[in-house]
Amino acid sequence: MVNVAIIGGSGYTGGELLRILSNHPEVEITSITSRKYEGENVENVHPHIRDSKLVFENKNSEEFDEDIVFTATPHGASMEIIPKIIKNTNAKIIDLSGDYRFEDYSIYEKWYHLKHTGYIESVYGLPELHRKEIAKARLIANPGCFTTGAILSGYPLSKKGYADRMIFDSKTGVSGAGIKPSEATHYPNIADNVNPYKVSTHRHTPEIKQELQRYSPVKISFTPILVPVLRGILTTNHSILKDEYFDFETKEQREDTSGKIEELYKKEYEKDPFVKVLSNGEIPKLSSVRGSNYIHIGCFEVDETGQLVVISAIDNLVKGASGQAIENMNIICGFDEKLGLDFFGMHP
Amino acid sequence: MVNVAIIGGSGYTGGELLRILSNHPEVEITSITSRKYEGENVENVHPHIRDSKLVFENKNSEEFDEDIVFTATPHGASMEIIPKIIKNTNAKIIDLSGDYRFEDYSIYEKWYHLKHTGYIESVYGLPELHRKEIAKARLIANPGCFTTGAILSGYPLSKKGYADRMIFDSKTGVSGAGIKPSEATHYPNIADNVNPYKVSTHRHTPEIKQELQRYSPVKISFTPILVPVLRGILTTNHSILKDEYFDFETKEQREDTSGKIEELYKKEYEKDPFVKVLSNGEIPKLSSVRGSNYIHIGCFEVDETGQLVVISAIDNLVKGASGQAIENMNIICGFDEKLGLDFFGMHP
Amino acid sequence: MVNVAIIGGSGYTGGELLRILSNHPEVEITSITSRKYEGENVENVHPHIRDSKLVFENKNSEEFDEDIVFTATPHGASMEIIPKIIKNTNAKIIDLSGDYRFEDYSIYEKWYHLKHTGYIESVYGLPELHRKEIAKARLIANPGCFTTGAILSGYPLSKKGYADRMIFDSKTGVSGAGIKPSEATHYPNIADNVNPYKVSTHRHTPEIKQELQRYSPVKISFTPILVPVLRGILTTNHSILKDEYFDFETKEQREDTSGKIEELYKKEYEKDPFVKVLSNGEIPKLSSVRGSNYIHIGCFEVDETGQLVVISAIDNLVKGASGQAIENMNIICGFDEKLGLDFFGMHP
Amino acid sequence: MVNVAIIGGSGYTGGELLRILSNHPEVEITSITSRKYEGENVENVHPHIRDSKLVFENKNSEEFDEDIVFTATPHGASMEIIPKIIKNTNAKIIDLSGDYRFEDYSIYEKWYHLKHTGYIESVYGLPELHRKEIAKARLIANPGCFTTGAILSGYPLSKKGYADRMIFDSKTGVSGAGIKPSEATHYPNIADNVNPYKVSTHRHTPEIKQELQRYSPVKISFTPILVPVLRGILTTNHSILKDEYFDFETKEQREDTSGKIEELYKKEYEKDPFVKVLSNGEIPKLSSVRGSNYIHIGCFEVDETGQLVVISAIDNLVKGASGQAIENMNIICGFDEKLGLDFFGMHP
Repeated sequence: MVNVAIIGGSGYTGGELLRILSNHPEVEITSITSRKYEGENVENVHPHIRDSKLVFENKNSEEFDEDIVFTATPHGASMEIIPKIIKNTNAKIIDLSGDYRFEDYSIYEKWYHLKHTGYIESVYGLPELHRKEIAKARLIANPGCFTTGAILSGYPLSKKGYADRMIFDSKTGVSGAGIKPSEATHYPNIADNVNPYKVSTHRHTPEIKQELQRYSPVKISFTPILVPVLRGILTTNHSILKDEYFDFETKEQREDTSGKIEELYKKEYEKDPFVKVLSNGEIPKLSSVRGSNYIHIGCFEVDETGQLVVISAIDNLVKGASGQAIENMNIICGFDEKLGLDFFGMHP
Repeated sequence: MVNVAIIGGSGYTGGELLRILSNHPEVEITSITSRKYEGENVENVHPHIRDSKLVFENKNSEEFDEDIVFTATPHGASMEIIPKIIKNTNAKIIDLSGDYRFEDYSIYEKWYHLKHTGYIESVYGLPELHRKEIAKARLIANPGCFTTGAILSGYPLSKKGYADRMIFDSKTGVSGAGIKPSEATHYPNIADNVNPYKVSTHRHTPEIKQELQRYSPVKISFTPILVPVLRGILTTNHSILKDEYFDFETKEQREDTSGKIEELYKKEYEKDPFVKVLSNGEIPKLSSVRGSNYIHIGCFEVDETGQLVVISAIDNLVKGASGQAIENMNIICGFDEKLGLDFFGMHP
Repeated sequence: MVNVAIIGGSGYTGGELLRILSNHPEVEITSITSRKYEGENVENVHPHIRDSKLVFENKNSEEFDEDIVFTATPHGASMEIIPKIIKNTNAKIIDLSGDYRFEDYSIYEKWYHLKHTGYIESVYGLPELHRKEIAKARLIANPGCFTTGAILSGYPLSKKGYADRMIFDSKTGVSGAGIKPSEATHYPNIADNVNPYKVSTHRHTPEIKQELQRYSPVKISFTPILVPVLRGILTTNHSILKDEYFDFETKEQREDTSGKIEELYKKEYEKDPFVKVLSNGEIPKLSSVRGSNYIHIGCFEVDETGQLVVISAIDNLVKGASGQAIENMNIICGFDEKLGLDFFGMHP
Repeated sequence: MVNVAIIGGSGYTGGELLRILSNHPEVEITSITSRKYEGENVENVHPHIRDSKLVFENKNSEEFDEDIVFTATPHGASMEIIPKIIKNTNAKIIDLSGDYRFEDYSIYEKWYHLKHTGYIESVYGLPELHRKEIAKARLIANPGCFTTGAILSGYPLSKKGYADRMIFDSKTGVSGAGIKPSEATHYPNIADNVNPYKVSTHRHTPEIKQELQRYSPVKISFTPILVPVLRGILTTNHSILKDEYFDFETKEQREDTSGKIEELYKKEYEKDPFVKVLSNGEIPKLSSVRGSNYIHIGCFEVDETGQLVVISAIDNLVKGASGQAIENMNIICGFDEKLGLDFFGMHP
């Protein structure tokens, strides 16, 4: 059994850590913190978590004697807390904020408009790309929600250098905006609407670039869109294929290209337990992954202009946040990667 | 042409007044106020209202020289503003808040937990019950949104003394909670949920009582429920019929009772231009009245226990607020009651 | 390990049985049938269930050698299949249709407009009321979705004879209407609408009566309402309290009555693992039970007319169908009642 | 006054023609047809249209003596009916199907998999591009819903030859799928989902190409996506700008480029009464145009890769269908283009 602490556990990612870890056979949650809700039972904030007996605490960094600490704190806060925990405890840390996701901290500072004051070496916690480094890490930077869906939809292509350009048009459920009400999450602004925001300026853009441009100089564009959905990110990756590698003039050529790309993805992800590459043009559905740690990737349709459409679906709070964090925990603890995460999505 | 001012025009009822009055052939909107948005174009706040050239002002009560003033101000604010306008101008006033809806101000003070400091005689602006008094009024208290749907679903029964008890279970769209974000209107709290609130303690309860108990001592219970709907209130009125008037043991008796009640409603509302009483058990649909000033009333199903179900559907922002306010304006101005309001709902 | 068959597994309840049983430590699903999809992988129909290797079969009743058979067949079909399975196999059967829910088969025939041709003794599978009989049963009639939420919201009151009348106004998610498209489930008819249907004539009415009138002659009325929600039934039980037992004139009396009723419910359900009685007026939320087998019961607000509001929330596909079926399986197999069902709802 | 007939009036576009034409000051609807609903009042099918006294008829083509005939018939049916009406009557015809939208009928036959048997000269009814020809036309082919939003979002760019490629990622409300229930419109398949379909193979693709490639050889890709929205199409046009015309390396260059493109659009559409080009990066909202004939176009964000995002919002049933059909009617009748259409969208 490993003991686990959750710092900043009053938000949606905190709730998901609780929901999933409650059924993890090798984990005991021994503390959960929240300044705002200090002294309250977790069920007052997370009405689905009943009888846990957990109470929100307000603890200092030296007081954590857990094996694993999840920091579900906002960016800016993580970089203050984590160096202290590293210094004062033996815990391994999985950070759900953006603070430790960048190899080049000047990129962080440019996109987050914030000075980074707590530099520490970290590993980017996307198991499909960095499983080995994760296993040995002290500090894991859990990827952003959009980022997970986007990178995994483009990684096999970029690795091969097959695409000139990827345009990500990503539709996200509103839980991605967090537990705090705002104009952007006000029901009458969301329902029956489709709201693009921070077009070309969203902070997940440089994360996507960092991971995908590692392999080839593919151009990256990113448009996030709020849709009237609770959970889930459906990413439409419009990739422009290089015509030196593929043909797409005739219907047969396009089908052939499509088939080759499906194969490429299947091969790449065959050992990744949470990636399902769909066959024969099947289109991923958010409801198939809702509540689960799976990512479904499919479509692979090519048109006459060489535009390939790859579509991925995740639950933004699970594979896009807390589930992936637990997957990372499993890896660093030497557990089976699926332990406690081996359940299907909820359709309908 | 009448000149019209809207005080407190930055909320949803302000937006609806603008939307509808823009097409009213006898109205010119000559001023609209908002402290918060002083100096801004209305389209910054109401993105659907384009090219109106209206700019939010911040005006004193003596500065209004309009014929009609709509006060779309919160309760508490209306009672401060309206006495000044009455004193300083010749305007007739239609108030959309709760401040002037009660004949007995102690009831207001009890339910609103607020001292009423600006008593003035008013008429309760429900045309189907008070058309004649409205025509002569200086100050009209526009009814609450729940109230309109509830009262009109029960009025014919109460007038005849046919019911012992009415239990209103009213499902409201979220626009009824206003333009200001809150936990109650946060998309993830509303979507895929059904949220009863202020059960038996909602402020519209005493309004419903005032109007329905005028005719017979019917017991009134009221449960408001937020549902994942943008606009509309569907009221289920569970009325307990008195067995001295109706039979409901056999199927035939129930059908007969049902038919008699449908007739009673049709007769009562035959001259009311915005009430449609549906036939043969047809159930009102929110989409049939969405965006319009109509109220549909139907169902009239009776069961073996003598429980009659009457269902009404309105758009909470139109017949439940701004549309009814304009209907009241038409009456006090001597216009046709349907002028500028003669359009259908939007289905789907 | 018990072997399990699912007959008629292509609908939503079939999908939920698969989803939940996939993680049940003592169960192996050894066959699943569907005439329509014979030969197809289950993931073609249930896109969230991946890699199960299960293929829909078309089997005769004598071919089942499983320990447990779930019949997720429509009413009318169950009564044809089940007698044959009883005769030809040793399986215990949990039927999810309405065919075996009634003690008096003339009631079935009256409400279902169908001759019952396959009478067999059964136990009504609501563990909170019939746990002991379930443990010994050969055939369990799993309760209807509305029924579960309604009965459990009223049972403690009826047992004591405290209420004259219960009016159930039940709001259901659309998954309750099943997997087959129809006008009633067409998105543009549901979204932004609230659709009462079969008012006073729904087939779950006599089930509710059977179970609640067993203890006292409480009058029962039932109105089902489709709301734009995927999963979940929120039942508002408007109970008319007998004034010989309770006082409700003053605020203090009402609060006292409210507290006593909360206590009554807590006591009644203290040993039921899936019933959570909420405290201090907390209102159950669908999202708290979404995807889980819990029922939350709360509110307990009383008004001056003696109308008590009790609210219950369930997931219609879990506690309202497949989860409760598995709970029944656990009981007849002698497992812990929570085995494989011990997970929380998904909020948000 | 012109007399108007609606052929095939039982669908959503028929309902919208009725809703809008009911308030058109120069129109009388003198007949409406439907084979399926012959003899029924329109309010049985369109529950929002009350007291119209219109009854569905089943008429032959020679029996129409109206001035204007709207054919709201499916593709395939229009090409059978329209040649007969042309031959037997003097009516001008506005066809809402795809049958007459293509200059080259081989393209129609390829994409619709149907032999075109009723060739007649027509004008493509997009007023912003073809107003003059529309004014003189006998037969107008009203554009597709996706097409309207896509073409108008790209037309000014294509006219100038500024873009290499346009990738349209178009999110549509479910009313676009029509009144007939199907698996694709089943509520549990749509709610909380985002469903791309017919990726790169949708029939509106060749329409978009026909109109946009008239001016420059821009590459066109099109992905339609069903979202849980009732009405509205939000089109994200990802255009790849030619670097010979624009700079986008530095932030200043990108802002400058963005400003120039906004100006280009404003100039192009300054005389088009239903096009609103938004300023300063404002993002169009579906709710701003809901129920209205307006199209809002905005965003104009450019990134470092030269990808420009232009976003348009329409109501698919109004500017995307029936509203634009009435706009075309106004043009051919010599009325003011806004007559009967001069109302705002419904936000929220």
